[in-house]
Amino acid sequence: MRILLSNDDGYFAPGLAALAQALAPLADITVVAPERDRSGASNSLTLDRPLMLRQAPGGFYYVNGTPTDCVHLAVTGMLDHMPDMVISGINHGANMGDDTIYSGTVAAATEGYLLGIPSIAVSLANHNAQHFDTAARVVVELVQRIQAQPPAEAMLLNVNVPDRGWVELGGLRVTRLGKRHKAESVVKTTNPRGQIVYWVGAAGLAQDAGEGTDFHAIANGFVSITPLQMDLTRFSQMDSVNAWLKS
Amino acid sequence: MRILLSNDDGYFAPGLAALAQALAPLADITVVAPERDRSGASNSLTLDRPLMLRQAPGGFYYVNGTPTDCVHLAVTGMLDHMPDMVISGINHGANMGDDTIYSGTVAAATEGYLLGIPSIAVSLANHNAQHFDTAARVVVELVQRIQAQPPAEAMLLNVNVPDRGWVELGGLRVTRLGKRHKAESVVKTTNPRGQIVYWVGAAGLAQDAGEGTDFHAIANGFVSITPLQMDLTRFSQMDSVNAWLKS
Amino acid sequence: MRILLSNDDGYFAPGLAALAQALAPLADITVVAPERDRSGASNSLTLDRPLMLRQAPGGFYYVNGTPTDCVHLAVTGMLDHMPDMVISGINHGANMGDDTIYSGTVAAATEGYLLGIPSIAVSLANHNAQHFDTAARVVVELVQRIQAQPPAEAMLLNVNVPDRGWVELGGLRVTRLGKRHKAESVVKTTNPRGQIVYWVGAAGLAQDAGEGTDFHAIANGFVSITPLQMDLTRFSQMDSVNAWLKS
Amino acid sequence: MRILLSNDDGYFAPGLAALAQALAPLADITVVAPERDRSGASNSLTLDRPLMLRQAPGGFYYVNGTPTDCVHLAVTGMLDHMPDMVISGINHGANMGDDTIYSGTVAAATEGYLLGIPSIAVSLANHNAQHFDTAARVVVELVQRIQAQPPAEAMLLNVNVPDRGWVELGGLRVTRLGKRHKAESVVKTTNPRGQIVYWVGAAGLAQDAGEGTDFHAIANGFVSITPLQMDLTRFSQMDSVNAWLKS
Repeated sequence: MRILLSNDDGYFAPGLAALAQALAPLADITVVAPERDRSGASNSLTLDRPLMLRQAPGGFYYVNGTPTDCVHLAVTGMLDHMPDMVISGINHGANMGDDTIYSGTVAAATEGYLLGIPSIAVSLANHNAQHFDTAARVVVELVQRIQAQPPAEAMLLNVNVPDRGWVELGGLRVTRLGKRHKAESVVKTTNPRGQIVYWVGAAGLAQDAGEGTDFHAIANGFVSITPLQMDLTRFSQMDSVNAWLKS
Repeated sequence: MRILLSNDDGYFAPGLAALAQALAPLADITVVAPERDRSGASNSLTLDRPLMLRQAPGGFYYVNGTPTDCVHLAVTGMLDHMPDMVISGINHGANMGDDTIYSGTVAAATEGYLLGIPSIAVSLANHNAQHFDTAARVVVELVQRIQAQPPAEAMLLNVNVPDRGWVELGGLRVTRLGKRHKAESVVKTTNPRGQIVYWVGAAGLAQDAGEGTDFHAIANGFVSITPLQMDLTRFSQMDSVNAWLKS
Repeated sequence: MRILLSNDDGYFAPGLAALAQALAPLADITVVAPERDRSGASNSLTLDRPLMLRQAPGGFYYVNGTPTDCVHLAVTGMLDHMPDMVISGINHGANMGDDTIYSGTVAAATEGYLLGIPSIAVSLANHNAQHFDTAARVVVELVQRIQAQPPAEAMLLNVNVPDRGWVELGGLRVTRLGKRHKAESVVKTTNPRGQIVYWVGAAGLAQDAGEGTDFHAIANGFVSITPLQMDLTRFSQMDSVNAWLKS
Repeated sequence: MRILLSNDDGYFAPGLAALAQALAPLADITVVAPERDRSGASNSLTLDRPLMLRQAPGGFYYVNGTPTDCVHLAVTGMLDHMPDMVISGINHGANMGDDTIYSGTVAAATEGYLLGIPSIAVSLANHNAQHFDTAARVVVELVQRIQAQPPAEAMLLNVNVPDRGWVELGGLRVTRLGKRHKAESVVKTTNPRGQIVYWVGAAGLAQDAGEGTDFHAIANGFVSITPLQMDLTRFSQMDSVNAWLKS
């Protein structure tokens, strides 16, 4: 089995190293990740300049581009064989609810999925993430299950793992994405040149964090696994928009 | 009525100017757009540096950030009142099918929608886009309809307009997003320093362009209107993933 | 006469517009300037990606690169004829003393000079610069003098103009560069994500601002004109280094 | 003795590692280098965003900024004590003649010098640089000499080393900077989207490479040591400019 790994924190991130190390006994691993932290990159593709691919002493490849660029370049121009899976992470911090829209971690897995490859994004749900080994073991178990019993249908899974020891995990939950309250306002401040500048504020608190959501699973110590889809069509609204346009 | 305009081609783009001019008789218009071309930016948010807001001689504001940054900053930190609508475009080139995942034009409208504001992304479906006036008039008619008959439910509409004169338009079609074939491979080349570099290749050709899709509408001369949603949960797959995990 | 104009504040800057307007009656003017503010860019050249050249509605060209890139691209790839002069500015704020090392305004003129073209950098010496018309008139008079009486030797002139009305100017002074005290320390602060970040601090105050320096000329209401050279060899120290190495 | 190391190739570059390893027995070493390749950065300072300082597993610090930013931040905000020296390199490729104007390697040393610290820039004069150990040993010998016999005057030395084994070196030469012919023209090409783009071309060939220059020393197998100065005033031209203005 061949697995392509990427992330959005950069090729030097400890979460990526933990993932590569844990998966090495199970599969041929290739790592292609951004040369610098690209958190918040979403699915952005670099169109205005070419990408360079370099290799770090440990063997990881890095690209002067986004997470999406990394997977795109690896699959369509670098690897001799299509990988059997793309796994992105382990992200330093959760990617739940609306975060999935902005996340570079989810984007790297999304690019794999859009290129026809089963893909997993995995995040450790704590801003001071510690237990990368726990998250890595969750991925190992998922990959072993996929090897033993391949799913009938291609999957794009968004996995969030509580930041605690393996024995303290409550098990797996298949979840839907929750919703956050609106993000906090930008933070207006002044730089040392006296110019007004604005920082994008923190993400909003969970709004829909009820039973069945990723927020709820994590809050209760379970691993959250959300199957994602990438067709943004709002089918349920097509009739009403049609009626409204004709009214 | 107050309308916030943005785009991903930059504050100086002719499509944005055409839109602002056409809407000025209908509403109070504020333009906040990227300082440079950010095509392909997707929903990326700038987290590692603060943003600056400046005003061009014509009155348009521009930001050293992404389309998402522009709308986020305008709504959460700059405008005194919430806008009644966010409109993004008129993009130079189509945003159909899987393009919506990568598009900065769609992302600006998405950010408005996630902040609770009805939003429209509008694109002129030709790489050598000419008839911005046609697309602007489509938007004017949509806004007039919204003013006359507000929809019951918040909407995020992705509008693509054929690049032809107004009288040659075939009317409006409510569509689903089509699908593209996989993107073309990266283009491997050498820079003048003898280093190997890779350009992200062109988007794939339409794969699902059948009746009912945005591709089909545009190919037949109709304006395509696709209602979008931003919950990426694949609800239809939750049971099978659950079964697979427990098997 | 053909004059190439550039700057580091961006193609939309009022100082550049004032310069272009004032020089139009005297020469064929081409403007090639950065697409965004590149203050502090020094002589940096963009080597890791190609440059794009676009034209704004008013006719100015802009480049997604540094001031040095702009002049380099214009002279070596875009213009049909070598320009007779390169003029950079009018910068918003002074470029005196050690500032010349970091300045993008000076760098654009330097690139012209290194390509064999007499060049002038011009700056309006006030952070809230108002009298661009005064600085533009100073440049007009210099260009008229060059037209009437071409200098025997190629020149790279660094011109700083007091921010006051033309009639209040005290005349021209040929000056040497003064020296500044060390820059102020970086400003350590925390971003909204709780991360420590550092802003580069303000430039140091003038240390050598005595008679004959650019600082002294400006402080006394004179236009400061400093001829620059680009050979960084410290000839006066070659013997002592030689002796020290052999001791 | 405390030495601050930096470079422009990035904190992960083999030339920097070789330098740090060779100097460790002689001094307390702190490394603060750019997070990515910033070749060609010249003396550019980052003014529009704050810098972040992070530490790699091996202990090296890296900054999301230019070489100048790295030294500036280290000296004015991070280190408890002023370093006794700043050394920048070992650059992958020569920095001779006019290259010194554009070089990020030279710029890092320049920033140390402008902050009052004796500084050395060191480059291995081959685009396929191999003998970093040779260049590192040259630096070790210079540092030992400085420790044994401190120079009377602050120095900024630009050192270029032939890419060969230590025993094949011809000795040290104190040199002046040579001159290059004008750079080659930009390379005009087309990207995969059909847009015209321009790559900055290669540096010009040596024009003044005569006896006494850095080019000449390297071509003949000697280490080239050029003392640099940062006062750009062209004193020799002040009188003629004065006469010309008054004529």
